[in-house]
Amino acid sequence: MFCQAARRCSRPVATTLRLARPKRSYASTAGPMFDWEDPLATKTLLTEEELAISETAERYCQERMLPRVLQAYRDEHYDAAILTEMGELGLLGANLEGYGCAGVSTVASGLITRAVERVDSGYRSGMSVQSSLVMGGIHAFGSTEQKERFLPSMAQGKMLGCFGLTEPNHGSDPGSMEATARPHPSKSGYVLLSGAKTWITNSPIADVLMVWAKMQETGKIRGFLVERKNCPTGTLETPPIKNKNGLRASITGMIQLDDCPVPLANMFPDVEGLSGPFTCLNSARMGIAFGVMGALEDCLARARTYALERRQFKNNPIAKYQLVQKKLSDAATDASYGVLAAIQVSRLKDEGKATPEMISLIKRQNCDRALVNARTLQEIFGGNAVSDEYAIGRHVANLFVTQTYEGQSDIHSLILGRAITGIQAFV
Amino acid sequence: MFCQAARRCSRPVATTLRLARPKRSYASTAGPMFDWEDPLATKTLLTEEELAISETAERYCQERMLPRVLQAYRDEHYDAAILTEMGELGLLGANLEGYGCAGVSTVASGLITRAVERVDSGYRSGMSVQSSLVMGGIHAFGSTEQKERFLPSMAQGKMLGCFGLTEPNHGSDPGSMEATARPHPSKSGYVLLSGAKTWITNSPIADVLMVWAKMQETGKIRGFLVERKNCPTGTLETPPIKNKNGLRASITGMIQLDDCPVPLANMFPDVEGLSGPFTCLNSARMGIAFGVMGALEDCLARARTYALERRQFKNNPIAKYQLVQKKLSDAATDASYGVLAAIQVSRLKDEGKATPEMISLIKRQNCDRALVNARTLQEIFGGNAVSDEYAIGRHVANLFVTQTYEGQSDIHSLILGRAITGIQAFV
Amino acid sequence: MFCQAARRCSRPVATTLRLARPKRSYASTAGPMFDWEDPLATKTLLTEEELAISETAERYCQERMLPRVLQAYRDEHYDAAILTEMGELGLLGANLEGYGCAGVSTVASGLITRAVERVDSGYRSGMSVQSSLVMGGIHAFGSTEQKERFLPSMAQGKMLGCFGLTEPNHGSDPGSMEATARPHPSKSGYVLLSGAKTWITNSPIADVLMVWAKMQETGKIRGFLVERKNCPTGTLETPPIKNKNGLRASITGMIQLDDCPVPLANMFPDVEGLSGPFTCLNSARMGIAFGVMGALEDCLARARTYALERRQFKNNPIAKYQLVQKKLSDAATDASYGVLAAIQVSRLKDEGKATPEMISLIKRQNCDRALVNARTLQEIFGGNAVSDEYAIGRHVANLFVTQTYEGQSDIHSLILGRAITGIQAFV
Amino acid sequence: MFCQAARRCSRPVATTLRLARPKRSYASTAGPMFDWEDPLATKTLLTEEELAISETAERYCQERMLPRVLQAYRDEHYDAAILTEMGELGLLGANLEGYGCAGVSTVASGLITRAVERVDSGYRSGMSVQSSLVMGGIHAFGSTEQKERFLPSMAQGKMLGCFGLTEPNHGSDPGSMEATARPHPSKSGYVLLSGAKTWITNSPIADVLMVWAKMQETGKIRGFLVERKNCPTGTLETPPIKNKNGLRASITGMIQLDDCPVPLANMFPDVEGLSGPFTCLNSARMGIAFGVMGALEDCLARARTYALERRQFKNNPIAKYQLVQKKLSDAATDASYGVLAAIQVSRLKDEGKATPEMISLIKRQNCDRALVNARTLQEIFGGNAVSDEYAIGRHVANLFVTQTYEGQSDIHSLILGRAITGIQAFV
Repeated sequence: MFCQAARRCSRPVATTLRLARPKRSYASTAGPMFDWEDPLATKTLLTEEELAISETAERYCQERMLPRVLQAYRDEHYDAAILTEMGELGLLGANLEGYGCAGVSTVASGLITRAVERVDSGYRSGMSVQSSLVMGGIHAFGSTEQKERFLPSMAQGKMLGCFGLTEPNHGSDPGSMEATARPHPSKSGYVLLSGAKTWITNSPIADVLMVWAKMQETGKIRGFLVERKNCPTGTLETPPIKNKNGLRASITGMIQLDDCPVPLANMFPDVEGLSGPFTCLNSARMGIAFGVMGALEDCLARARTYALERRQFKNNPIAKYQLVQKKLSDAATDASYGVLAAIQVSRLKDEGKATPEMISLIKRQNCDRALVNARTLQEIFGGNAVSDEYAIGRHVANLFVTQTYEGQSDIHSLILGRAITGIQAFV
Repeated sequence: MFCQAARRCSRPVATTLRLARPKRSYASTAGPMFDWEDPLATKTLLTEEELAISETAERYCQERMLPRVLQAYRDEHYDAAILTEMGELGLLGANLEGYGCAGVSTVASGLITRAVERVDSGYRSGMSVQSSLVMGGIHAFGSTEQKERFLPSMAQGKMLGCFGLTEPNHGSDPGSMEATARPHPSKSGYVLLSGAKTWITNSPIADVLMVWAKMQETGKIRGFLVERKNCPTGTLETPPIKNKNGLRASITGMIQLDDCPVPLANMFPDVEGLSGPFTCLNSARMGIAFGVMGALEDCLARARTYALERRQFKNNPIAKYQLVQKKLSDAATDASYGVLAAIQVSRLKDEGKATPEMISLIKRQNCDRALVNARTLQEIFGGNAVSDEYAIGRHVANLFVTQTYEGQSDIHSLILGRAITGIQAFV
Repeated sequence: MFCQAARRCSRPVATTLRLARPKRSYASTAGPMFDWEDPLATKTLLTEEELAISETAERYCQERMLPRVLQAYRDEHYDAAILTEMGELGLLGANLEGYGCAGVSTVASGLITRAVERVDSGYRSGMSVQSSLVMGGIHAFGSTEQKERFLPSMAQGKMLGCFGLTEPNHGSDPGSMEATARPHPSKSGYVLLSGAKTWITNSPIADVLMVWAKMQETGKIRGFLVERKNCPTGTLETPPIKNKNGLRASITGMIQLDDCPVPLANMFPDVEGLSGPFTCLNSARMGIAFGVMGALEDCLARARTYALERRQFKNNPIAKYQLVQKKLSDAATDASYGVLAAIQVSRLKDEGKATPEMISLIKRQNCDRALVNARTLQEIFGGNAVSDEYAIGRHVANLFVTQTYEGQSDIHSLILGRAITGIQAFV
Repeated sequence: MFCQAARRCSRPVATTLRLARPKRSYASTAGPMFDWEDPLATKTLLTEEELAISETAERYCQERMLPRVLQAYRDEHYDAAILTEMGELGLLGANLEGYGCAGVSTVASGLITRAVERVDSGYRSGMSVQSSLVMGGIHAFGSTEQKERFLPSMAQGKMLGCFGLTEPNHGSDPGSMEATARPHPSKSGYVLLSGAKTWITNSPIADVLMVWAKMQETGKIRGFLVERKNCPTGTLETPPIKNKNGLRASITGMIQLDDCPVPLANMFPDVEGLSGPFTCLNSARMGIAFGVMGALEDCLARARTYALERRQFKNNPIAKYQLVQKKLSDAATDASYGVLAAIQVSRLKDEGKATPEMISLIKRQNCDRALVNARTLQEIFGGNAVSDEYAIGRHVANLFVTQTYEGQSDIHSLILGRAITGIQAFV
């Protein structure tokens, strides 16, 4: 499937950002070369298939996504066609087995998110919701019937999903959610969902909404697949949230449910409590940890190009200045460490050895370091950074959001702190 | 003048951000109170007049400016009426003597910029250009005729100015500028100005443009007051620069001069070289050092309010969490240190004891610390920070720009480094 | 008294660290000069008397203390003669009124601590204990008889004191102290003190030990002046604590009390609870906030000298490198801000307007910034920093301790956090 | 050889620091466990042999080295028996092939350095010099005769070596070295070495001194193996450098050569210029990158134990405080990332794919992060940190030195900057 997809994108990848490859520094013999774009040679850890998938994804993203993002971000507009295109390329739910999904490794899946986020964290968010949160959740917890009904068309990007967990008053603490499901008073085999979810990526365009709510009788959290086309008028609203100062190329909204009837056949049969949504989030966080490295790498490449082209003081490229070089070095270092860690935990996941704390650890660190370095690299652009055409301001604004969602950085530090000390310190 | 102005703004200052004043911590007797909004009691350093001016400015800004800024920032629109209103209140060029200016202290002038930047750095930028760069420059270097011609209407905000120094290829190194003034081939007493200036706040709306250019014959930099109304068609263009990712409530543009005829009567009579623009910049940087503290203080006040109102985990306000309190403490500390330093250098300036290095020092430090702390405070808002209604994202984006303009932070560190070591390290 | 003292130190102050004063950077006219040793011209805020006191103290410290400190630190030896010498110069308890004390301003007193800590934080600690904690405590809470009995000889450095509050298990939380005072079973007007205090500067050499203990009957904390000469054998031990990795030029020990009889005449008559020791600590913290700036300034001066003398790569002084200059600039900035804040709070204190939170604020910030910058400056010395003759390693080790004592940095951030939010977050 | 060695250390490893292993946080089923001592499960990347070697080394270090280090550090004394013991265990030059060396992987070799530096960076330095710099250099550049003559007894720790590159005036820039080798005026096949080397670990106790000097005739740098026993009196002095403030458990000295005759048979036959010493340094830096993670891990373990045992405020262990947990989380994160990167580059090295820039990158980052986190963890100990029995102060002091030697951190950032931009910025 990837080969086919790859062939469709026949134009060469834009390489303008990759100019001026420096000569090997102090080597005279033909030894290994240092590659500033992959300083720790993480490519050596990838399989042929993973390299091919990465290449396909990068080509698609640079050729098809990149040209759209500047205007999309300005207009706060999300082009849902992107998900369809990604579906055609087999990039959605790629690490899932069966039901029309590619069944690739977690690393391969992570490389796709990196390619997408190299363009924009908002585009990656849109894809993460579809792939990790919704498709991943259905794959993990859905009945066979549910999987067969939803996954194939979601994999193709023909059916879009969203994930409704966060509520206006309950962000870091989803266990206190207020959304409820109560038995339908008249229609057997149905429940009525009520409640409000907010900061829901893709909610305004979603066909199927995975909503987590407490059973009124038991207080237990259960997951429901709400199909928009089946909701009576007035029972489901998904107003968009506008005027965001980050992730503007993704669409975000609320989910407002008012006695919305949902058949029990659309409830996940077994999973109960927070382990359901937390499993989905773990998968998504894995993707974020990989993805943000793509955004950071793009910042680095752009800052490097700018520093080589921009001349000040006796016509020197500012890349010659120590204070500039240090910023580039720091960023390259953190990017390479972050990619390495993401690969490691992905491999562990595929071997059944990953724990949620590991994912907290790399999600936090990679988001934090991506943000810190992106901000530092932004300084290289001086006053010019304020122009959105240099893209780095967009990455900086996006990366701040990635630091706060799916577990704000401090919360993950306390999750780790609990794992290290055995004592929880949330309250 | 200020008293009159004050009376016009009779509505009470919005106090929603100032709720929940905590009780004195561990004092039983009636001693002095700690004020988190002025932790080092810098108010004790102000004169009665300065306090009154500050109050007038704060009231105007909170009542009249604040309600406009959210939409203005969204729309990237600058309301030039603001300068007229400020002129009516006597807030423009306030620290200049004569020519219709208020002649207040540098501290008082700084308190005005702090009040304005508490609302928005873009509004402060618009004012700084008018007050410090243009009016300040005319006051310092203009002939008596020039002062009389321009200053009174500029002080009233009826004539708007802009300051043209930075060029597309020469930011940190203005000495390499390419704009030139050559003798008019036919019209005696005139020069023809050519060249391009960029990132010029207010250029699209300016009536008078202070342009720095090199005399073709001597290579010496001179300053010119270009009056838009007198420029023949095609000799002056001031296209706006759109799609900024910060300072969106201010208007920025280019200045494109193509053999624009300017009478020598509009050239500053004596000042030559970079000491002219640098003097203007010093005055503006003084204002920035004061101003950014206002932005930081607003971030602190908003973050504090949010932390007191937002509840997570067993319904605790997040203000109870150590990681949140540390962010608030750090910000309050840096804000109070920064205000203190700004007052000190302002006083020195009025006594003729300030040096440019001192202003570099406080401009750099206050911008850096305002930015760092604003970003940290932004974390308190978690995912909600992405909504522009919380304002903090706007401050963060703005403060990054203040760090880069009128001397990027690193450049100021090298200016200081040169002053400390006697060795310059720019190249 | 100061003039006399000054005359005794007639040798010129060693000026080796003050070489290579750079020329004024870009000024052609004779304007004010930038002084890298006082970047914000804080000297302009001092009175003639304060300047004279500062000069006396600096001269004494550079001439008499500095030559001793290297060996003292190596040997972990405290020369108690230093306190006698300081007493002769009138430098002990200098800001107290009457009883043989100089009665100078809090600023003057702070300038003394700055001069001492420019040499070594351990020497300053020894002085702070004598001046602020013990003499200050007696002055504030002692009966007239107590003041007359202790203060004059303490001011002369003939009687040494120490301050016993911290216990082995109660550092940040002194309210949980376990030391007790119970009525003497047989001797009227006496109590028996029992308990252990630790990390007590000067305890092994103290003649009078101010010990805080809980009255057995009431549980209320009271303060006692334990005179070593009157303690029966076996009731008071003050073993030194050796092998410290910082403050090695000061002497630290424990206080072990075992039914030590103390007359009630040696108990502070009125003060009860933690307000007593906290008042003493506030005064000492004020001194620390001033003092650590001296240590930082010494680090800066030494790093600057080293950077000007050390040559690498084509024989350039390393002071020419941007990465070095930035470290110097950062340190100079923080030092000047810190001094300014210390002066401000000192003035407020003398006017009765200072609050404990203000002192927490500047104690924390100045200690933190002194430490951070000292560490960064240490990098300039490269591998040579490991030699103790460059002194900077000693300052770094000392400054870490100042960050932890008299309120560890995080604790002060929570004290501030409580003052800002009204919510305490210690537990 | 390792199995034998392992059997000799039959006592159980001290486990006092590993108490209080927390239960798995939010897992109900028996899944993989999070191990705070190896958060990213890097053990899964090791071979059986590597795990066994690591275990042997850790056991030896904890059982035999750890009990010695406190006193050694106090006394600034290096026990050369340690190298003999390590030789007996096969831990010296372990990654070299033949000549009595174990021929293990670079990862295994790195695990040994990690085990040693978990005890003390000075002990690791002593071993690095022997193993990487001297044995590694002889193995890489020596003639067969040289290898056979030196390596076997060095591997056994019976012959000690040191590495003489750095000179008093040439640290970061060894190419400017002043040491020279000139033809012996009378003795054919000999040169006379003159010059001074400083900060040479092990120089006072070395039997063989690898000295780099410039050939007087050509100016080319060559390497010499100076055998102390063959040096005429007065031609070689190796005075120790005392009073270091870090790495006090290692011995450091100078090398002073005054027309010291050395046979050309002791010169490396082929290598010329800086590629010789740089190759040695690369190998040593690889070990440092691994080693410092051991020191950081020890700091983390100790800080965690302290935080669990120390109680303040209502008898809560301070491990419950958010500000403490964040410090632990940060350290665990950086330690795990650093180990991962060290393993990756080690594997690349064994595959012939590592470049010097990669080693610069991980040496810099791991040293920097180890230092930063060790300092932060030190704060957890509050005032108690000043006692050397808590060990963390020793690690902090040591780690600062590791940051400065074998390429100061800033220099490595410029090496990376050059590799990224193609422009060198050293001068």
